[in-house]
Amino acid sequence: MSGQLRVLPLGGLGEIGKNMTVVEFDDRIVVVDVGLRFPTPEMVGIDLVLPDFAYLRERAADIEAIVITHGHEDHLGALPWVLRELRGELDAPVYGGALTLAMARSKLDEHKLRDIELNEIDAGESVDLGPFSLELVHMTHSIPDSSAVALGTELGTVLITGDYKFDQTPVDGAPADVSRLAELGREGVLLLCGDSTNVDRPGFSPSESVVGPHLEEVFARCRGRIVVTSFASNIHRVQQVVDAAEALGRKVALVGRSMRKNVGIGRNLGHIEVPDGMLVGPREITDLPDDRVVIISTGSQGEPLSALRRMAYRDHRQVELKKGDTVVFSATPIPGNERAVNETIDRLYHIGCDVITPRDAPVHASGHGYAEEVKLMLNLVKPRYVMPFHGDFKRLRLHAQLAEAVGIAPEDIFQGDNGLPLEIDERRARFGEREQSGMIFVDGVELGEMADVALRDRRMLSADGIFVVVATISEQTGESVADPEVIFRGVPYRDDADKLLDEIRDAVDDSLERASREEVREIDLLQQILHDDLAALVYERLKRRPMVLPVVVEV
Amino acid sequence: MSGQLRVLPLGGLGEIGKNMTVVEFDDRIVVVDVGLRFPTPEMVGIDLVLPDFAYLRERAADIEAIVITHGHEDHLGALPWVLRELRGELDAPVYGGALTLAMARSKLDEHKLRDIELNEIDAGESVDLGPFSLELVHMTHSIPDSSAVALGTELGTVLITGDYKFDQTPVDGAPADVSRLAELGREGVLLLCGDSTNVDRPGFSPSESVVGPHLEEVFARCRGRIVVTSFASNIHRVQQVVDAAEALGRKVALVGRSMRKNVGIGRNLGHIEVPDGMLVGPREITDLPDDRVVIISTGSQGEPLSALRRMAYRDHRQVELKKGDTVVFSATPIPGNERAVNETIDRLYHIGCDVITPRDAPVHASGHGYAEEVKLMLNLVKPRYVMPFHGDFKRLRLHAQLAEAVGIAPEDIFQGDNGLPLEIDERRARFGEREQSGMIFVDGVELGEMADVALRDRRMLSADGIFVVVATISEQTGESVADPEVIFRGVPYRDDADKLLDEIRDAVDDSLERASREEVREIDLLQQILHDDLAALVYERLKRRPMVLPVVVEV
Repeated sequence: MSGQLRVLPLGGLGEIGKNMTVVEFDDRIVVVDVGLRFPTPEMVGIDLVLPDFAYLRERAADIEAIVITHGHEDHLGALPWVLRELRGELDAPVYGGALTLAMARSKLDEHKLRDIELNEIDAGESVDLGPFSLELVHMTHSIPDSSAVALGTELGTVLITGDYKFDQTPVDGAPADVSRLAELGREGVLLLCGDSTNVDRPGFSPSESVVGPHLEEVFARCRGRIVVTSFASNIHRVQQVVDAAEALGRKVALVGRSMRKNVGIGRNLGHIEVPDGMLVGPREITDLPDDRVVIISTGSQGEPLSALRRMAYRDHRQVELKKGDTVVFSATPIPGNERAVNETIDRLYHIGCDVITPRDAPVHASGHGYAEEVKLMLNLVKPRYVMPFHGDFKRLRLHAQLAEAVGIAPEDIFQGDNGLPLEIDERRARFGEREQSGMIFVDGVELGEMADVALRDRRMLSADGIFVVVATISEQTGESVADPEVIFRGVPYRDDADKLLDEIRDAVDDSLERASREEVREIDLLQQILHDDLAALVYERLKRRPMVLPVVVEV
Repeated sequence: MSGQLRVLPLGGLGEIGKNMTVVEFDDRIVVVDVGLRFPTPEMVGIDLVLPDFAYLRERAADIEAIVITHGHEDHLGALPWVLRELRGELDAPVYGGALTLAMARSKLDEHKLRDIELNEIDAGESVDLGPFSLELVHMTHSIPDSSAVALGTELGTVLITGDYKFDQTPVDGAPADVSRLAELGREGVLLLCGDSTNVDRPGFSPSESVVGPHLEEVFARCRGRIVVTSFASNIHRVQQVVDAAEALGRKVALVGRSMRKNVGIGRNLGHIEVPDGMLVGPREITDLPDDRVVIISTGSQGEPLSALRRMAYRDHRQVELKKGDTVVFSATPIPGNERAVNETIDRLYHIGCDVITPRDAPVHASGHGYAEEVKLMLNLVKPRYVMPFHGDFKRLRLHAQLAEAVGIAPEDIFQGDNGLPLEIDERRARFGEREQSGMIFVDGVELGEMADVALRDRRMLSADGIFVVVATISEQTGESVADPEVIFRGVPYRDDADKLLDEIRDAVDDSLERASREEVREIDLLQQILHDDLAALVYERLKRRPMVLPVVVEV
């Protein structure tokens, strides 16, 4: 494989989330981002979804470094699991910006993972990693300290943009380093892997700094308390809420664990400034006049246990909302969260609150560049090859169309898929053979290798419930020695439930007698017979297919 | 209660769906609409949600009639259950337009409910029902034969709009009867209960007939096969797809059971005209050139078993989609269905299809009037009192604001809730005492009266799975006489699963011994002890809370 570059996405293509990419050269590996996704409702009982990183298990010793572009869950969240699973084999540090690593540190602490080498590098600085040179290029996004990753090799440079927008007036005054991107472009970029999240929106995204004045306008019209909900990691947004509150003489309370944590990290690193005396505790709110309070809260996605959701359902210990309060959603729902967000909003209306969303006023700006920004990136970097990243198949396709529009030849544009490596040598680029990829479920503290079976069972249990049937037979004769026990859970109660239970008990006896006549004595076989007979009976009576779980006990 | 009018909504307020209203005068009742809702993901294993109509059980004999405004599920779908549950007591016919009753008949047939008196009435015709006079007023909506219901009483007229828009150029040439609405307004309407679905959209809704030319434009650009998905009941939309196909020399195939059924009903009643030879069977598609085919399919909401969803997942027996095919979504997602629709769209992109949605071209028009239409209704009808219907709390509030904007006094506007009756006499209107209302779950063929317990169990089962533990003890001594059986389902497999099962078996023995020492012999108590001990052990080991179901068998 010497002299060949391989770029293998393990997540983030054909989906939104769990971004992870393996870049290989001369048998050495740099991993860029290790993100997670949140489960869909079909993934019953699953907490988190990670990229399947089986590919790295046997290659752990080849990994030079793990590089994180920014501190969001979909780029960073799988780090603790990956590090724990590869530990022993892995001898690679984690690289990233200061805030990114602070967030990584906080995650690793939760997982009791100490002794991990976290190497902070500044944007513009260059580090040699075996056959690679690594450089972070400063970008703007909805969290400070976001970078593109440039990986130089003998063959040329791979540029992975991470999430970005070209914000010309970011809140911290540090726009994306277009100058360095242009320089890389002039030097020659071999492959560009770019964010596709907002390729379907025409034009340029609005700057983050337009949000502040709009927040202030909205606040100025409120006579009661104000609750602003946003992503806890959107530290510049929090800054703008604090500034608007200050301008109108309101104090600020932070509600929600991750909001307090991230604001703490952000203050330590100088990304957010809160004037002395501005912050009050959630319990102190009631001591202040309503028009002197702004609450900044988690829950902008309608998350079940979040602070705002609890407030909306009148289940929050510290904040009780009331008529006249205004709730500002300074965020849009991530696709899939629309229903949860709308439910939360409607509970707020039921209480009598006013609700302002980005549909009512420009109180949110996306952190991902729109179509013209994607084109600008392509024109700055002038890549030889293009592989769109971070998007469902629709967005990957649209991104490819934008690349064609700026003059990249169709045969140099690669619409990829998770697990499909792009292999590049001096002459050409093409997709190689598919590698293992997919989802790993996190269920509690465990990685669910065999979770497919468990999930199928859970779906069945959740759809129709379960009947447990216990038959006790004599070890000597195989005959029933106690009345069968029948228990059901998750099956709706019916008036004639007792009758059905009697029928099932009779059916157990019939099945056992038949098995005895046919001299079936093997427990597994007996259980199979009971299962088939009882499942048929239950379906006949209920027109449902609950799980039927027969247990045969020999005494 | 003589001389008092009561309007009791049992569904459709503070929610979208399951519309149902009880109108009472002089102790006699007319029920307007009996709709259903589809379950949310939290309602695990539930098929349908009906309004809780317990209120009508004791009043069944007082019901003069059930009136259905139009043939959509959220206005008609609960009819079979309501009729079956109230049968015996109920002696009231069902009134509605011809298409509405044809759809009702088809539903009742599926439920084997014969001998139900279905009385077709034409819009404009008046029928006396005890102390009420009933009149249907012709309206336009996304299904033909939609009506508002005017119920005259001694005290005045209640007008329930049903779903409507003021389409000035409907496909069948019959706009809403604004003239009759105005006449009712001049005569004096006591209470207006109006549709709130689109109150949050400014202006007037586009006419259904603008969709046809846009469909033709889109079709003209397609070189491959075309699939159009829409609601099967949107018969005028189907007509327009047929017309556009005809204009471009394409044949039409209908795919999906409800699509074929509704087109059949629509053709029988003359609501849709298909030229001879235009329709081909789904299997004949492959015999035609790709640019001579339009498929009209169900599945516009991403429904799991729908034809389009199956096609997108390459699981449809008759239609195999391919690169170059175009899929036109001639519908928008109902709130809550966004994720399912987006998943379907992305699978289509993955296949290589082009996808056109209402965001790309005006290939859909809503059936519900926008804010200006709601105001027009208020101005035409000039009601004494207003109670917004059909909407979540946000939309009910916005509707109330529109009513204020056209000059209705705030104290004459009632923002209601399911179960809250509005009581009107000569002097005034006010909310009365809350009546029972809520949801009834349909689970298979059963109405789930006790479904709450079953649902809680299902949620628990689906979240973490189940452990079943069977202990066999001697009736005489209470001692264990067989090894405990431990079975789990829906719990992720772990490498050390055997170890945990051993631990559980040991714990069962320990618990039984302790119980024996303490002379606990009662089976229920033993099971409780086992449950508590094992649940603690399982949580300690897994950090999850699967259901623990102990069964103690005495031999």
